[in-house]
Amino acid sequence: MPIMNLPKEKIPKKLKNGEIKVAVFGLGRIGLPTALLFAEKGVIVYGVDTQKSIVELIKAGNAHIDEPSLAELLKKVLENNNFFITSDSRDAMNKSDVAIICVPTPVKADKVPDYSNIIQVCNMGLRYLKRDDLIIVESTISPGTIENVMIPLIETNTGLKAGKDYGIACCPERANPGQIITNFRSTPRIIGGYTKKSTEITTALYQYITDAEIIQVSNDRTACAVKLTENIFRDVNIALFNELAILYEKLGLDIIEIIEAASTKWNFQPHYPGAGVGGPCLPANPYYLIQEAIKVGFVPYLIRMAREINDRMPQHIIELTLEALNQAEKSVKNAKIAILGVTYKPNVHDFQLSPAISIIQILTQLKAKLSIYDPLIRQEDISQLNFLQESNCMQSLEMAVKDSDCIIIITAHDEFKRIKLENLKKMTATPLIIVDGRNIFNLKEIPTDIIYIGVGRKKLM
Amino acid sequence: MPIMNLPKEKIPKKLKNGEIKVAVFGLGRIGLPTALLFAEKGVIVYGVDTQKSIVELIKAGNAHIDEPSLAELLKKVLENNNFFITSDSRDAMNKSDVAIICVPTPVKADKVPDYSNIIQVCNMGLRYLKRDDLIIVESTISPGTIENVMIPLIETNTGLKAGKDYGIACCPERANPGQIITNFRSTPRIIGGYTKKSTEITTALYQYITDAEIIQVSNDRTACAVKLTENIFRDVNIALFNELAILYEKLGLDIIEIIEAASTKWNFQPHYPGAGVGGPCLPANPYYLIQEAIKVGFVPYLIRMAREINDRMPQHIIELTLEALNQAEKSVKNAKIAILGVTYKPNVHDFQLSPAISIIQILTQLKAKLSIYDPLIRQEDISQLNFLQESNCMQSLEMAVKDSDCIIIITAHDEFKRIKLENLKKMTATPLIIVDGRNIFNLKEIPTDIIYIGVGRKKLM
Repeated sequence: MPIMNLPKEKIPKKLKNGEIKVAVFGLGRIGLPTALLFAEKGVIVYGVDTQKSIVELIKAGNAHIDEPSLAELLKKVLENNNFFITSDSRDAMNKSDVAIICVPTPVKADKVPDYSNIIQVCNMGLRYLKRDDLIIVESTISPGTIENVMIPLIETNTGLKAGKDYGIACCPERANPGQIITNFRSTPRIIGGYTKKSTEITTALYQYITDAEIIQVSNDRTACAVKLTENIFRDVNIALFNELAILYEKLGLDIIEIIEAASTKWNFQPHYPGAGVGGPCLPANPYYLIQEAIKVGFVPYLIRMAREINDRMPQHIIELTLEALNQAEKSVKNAKIAILGVTYKPNVHDFQLSPAISIIQILTQLKAKLSIYDPLIRQEDISQLNFLQESNCMQSLEMAVKDSDCIIIITAHDEFKRIKLENLKKMTATPLIIVDGRNIFNLKEIPTDIIYIGVGRKKLM
Repeated sequence: MPIMNLPKEKIPKKLKNGEIKVAVFGLGRIGLPTALLFAEKGVIVYGVDTQKSIVELIKAGNAHIDEPSLAELLKKVLENNNFFITSDSRDAMNKSDVAIICVPTPVKADKVPDYSNIIQVCNMGLRYLKRDDLIIVESTISPGTIENVMIPLIETNTGLKAGKDYGIACCPERANPGQIITNFRSTPRIIGGYTKKSTEITTALYQYITDAEIIQVSNDRTACAVKLTENIFRDVNIALFNELAILYEKLGLDIIEIIEAASTKWNFQPHYPGAGVGGPCLPANPYYLIQEAIKVGFVPYLIRMAREINDRMPQHIIELTLEALNQAEKSVKNAKIAILGVTYKPNVHDFQLSPAISIIQILTQLKAKLSIYDPLIRQEDISQLNFLQESNCMQSLEMAVKDSDCIIIITAHDEFKRIKLENLKKMTATPLIIVDGRNIFNLKEIPTDIIYIGVGRKKLM
């Protein structure tokens, strides 16, 4: 069913009766939920992933990503027999009318955007694009990527012309890991097409799976820019409070007290300093816009500076650790240091670009004796990660902190927030030294015989 | 009545019966409302200003600053005979138990904080400080100014020791010009004293005049930092959107459309680009913290960069003007350019550090023929301001725009928002060229025969 030829009013019925079929490329934290939401509504969905192990896992009903209610949704959808998981992108594309691109768009080590997954989809699945099909990009990309990367490749591979022969639109995911299903159901979607028709048909598709508001913007480039602007806003604000944190440490002030007081002003929005900014989005997205800016001869200094400040926070944690140990006349070398938290944020398994990685690497270089504990990290990840050694990774908080000279908190997992410092003291060397990379403790409740340094506040002995 | 010796519970009664008297130093946009709020509640207040003309004006019942409900409040208070306006700081201080400091704290041309008004109060009024008096600083100062500037001067002048012989606290004003009285009545106050006792007594005083929440913080330095953090947050965010605006102009995107779409995300807070950041607070406050940072060997690059970006926006308006005129094959030299708006923000008289100043200066250097109109600027200001010539200043919008080649909007006054572009076209040269420094027009409603450039968006012909 050539979807781009349909009046938008007909879309819901044709989705329902199986005349319009959807292929989702990339079955990761965005693609799998997206595929499931369409399949849940009875749409015939082909979920495509090049990693055969992931295909097999999902086929067997095992969600390889951990999101609230995802496992149940997968189970329910698989019972309906309208969700086909495959690594055969040709077959999926041949059978589908819509291709939704949900592949990851990270940055390379030199901070240049890595579009290889997007390019691979253009060269593999989209090679089989048919006239009047529709392509929707949920992956985060910079404005211009559709025009400058995707459309030329698609035309080379298929001879089809964007806007004329097929539709293409950007509908960036705006979901927060740990709340992805909820966000997909309730957070407004931003949709911008290469043509007005692409915007309209894409809108009709998403209206079928969500009750949330749909914001139509002028074009695909605007939609891409909205997504990047949102995450850059967060990254810059976190950087501001990281910068203020370092200053307020030097001025002997408590940044958490300051943020809480400032939050009583009508136009202030609190953001918090910390051990660093990780995950799939914030450390990567700004570089997508930075690179696009540099191409047009403009350097967005503020945005780039913010990235540099946030990227430097793990190093600041090392400096705080050196200072805290120094107070107790200890060196990092041979100190027993417990690392609490490896994942990039609380209560998720994901450790992508986590500040823990470089903190562990630097402390290892400095010859600290590390014991690492994270209640969320998975055993299979530990064996894969070259910055973790199985011998360092502990099975419990108690094992990790036993006899430690210093405890560094990198992730604000709920388990860590429940720590009672008076109990902890009994397990560690004396004095207990805490470097609190997430300010999880109440400064006023720190026992006087503990050396405590948070990010942006200190209580030395 | 030595206020620092009183239990806090006794403060309200002693304020009411005139045993505790208050001197307010500086009767500007903060000091006059502060004095009136105390006087309104029956407190005996001495309002001190070194400018005798201001003293005479206020005495005669003329509020020299324009704030909603201020004139009525002044009139009402003067009838009660408990508000004494004077330039005799010695007499005021001799008669009072509390000194509230509300003098302006601007920056010098080289962006170094200008504490001369604070120093003057220390050397004049506070020279007559008595044992167990209380000093409260509402002026915006950096953390450490009380300890490093005020306390040493006061000790030299009086021999009295802070904390021991007298109380001193910081209660920074958090009011938005144009809403000062409302903010004073309803926005939570932040209070931090040099000692706990100073915090408590200051709290009791402000509880007497406001129903708003009072947030007690650890010390005066923290209270100062809260105020600076709030305004730095705003300045940095405006800078971020100014930077994005310049980029999105180059990418052919509309930043207003992007901000509106991004605002549908739960954790995004909109800020807007513009012709520049003016007024008494935002262009000055960040430098107070920057200078304090440099003293402790730390450069807050992000905060400084934000200031530089915002300070450069008037220059960007000039660039947009050159580009817009160029489209119509015109030069700035000899072009008739109408400047709409001189004050630093909508619907206020204040032109302090307004971006209009440098825009007018640069255009004058480029030999444009300027006609300037601002419905809010006062005649007495025009004759004082060296960047304005009376011959350039028009009495109406129509007179200003008549036959103009280009119209630059610098302030989003309500009168300008009501402009109908179809009517405007008839009064100006053809094509009508608009440089919209505040994005007051709806891009979709711009007639096709107008050259329109906003900050962060363009509609060229």
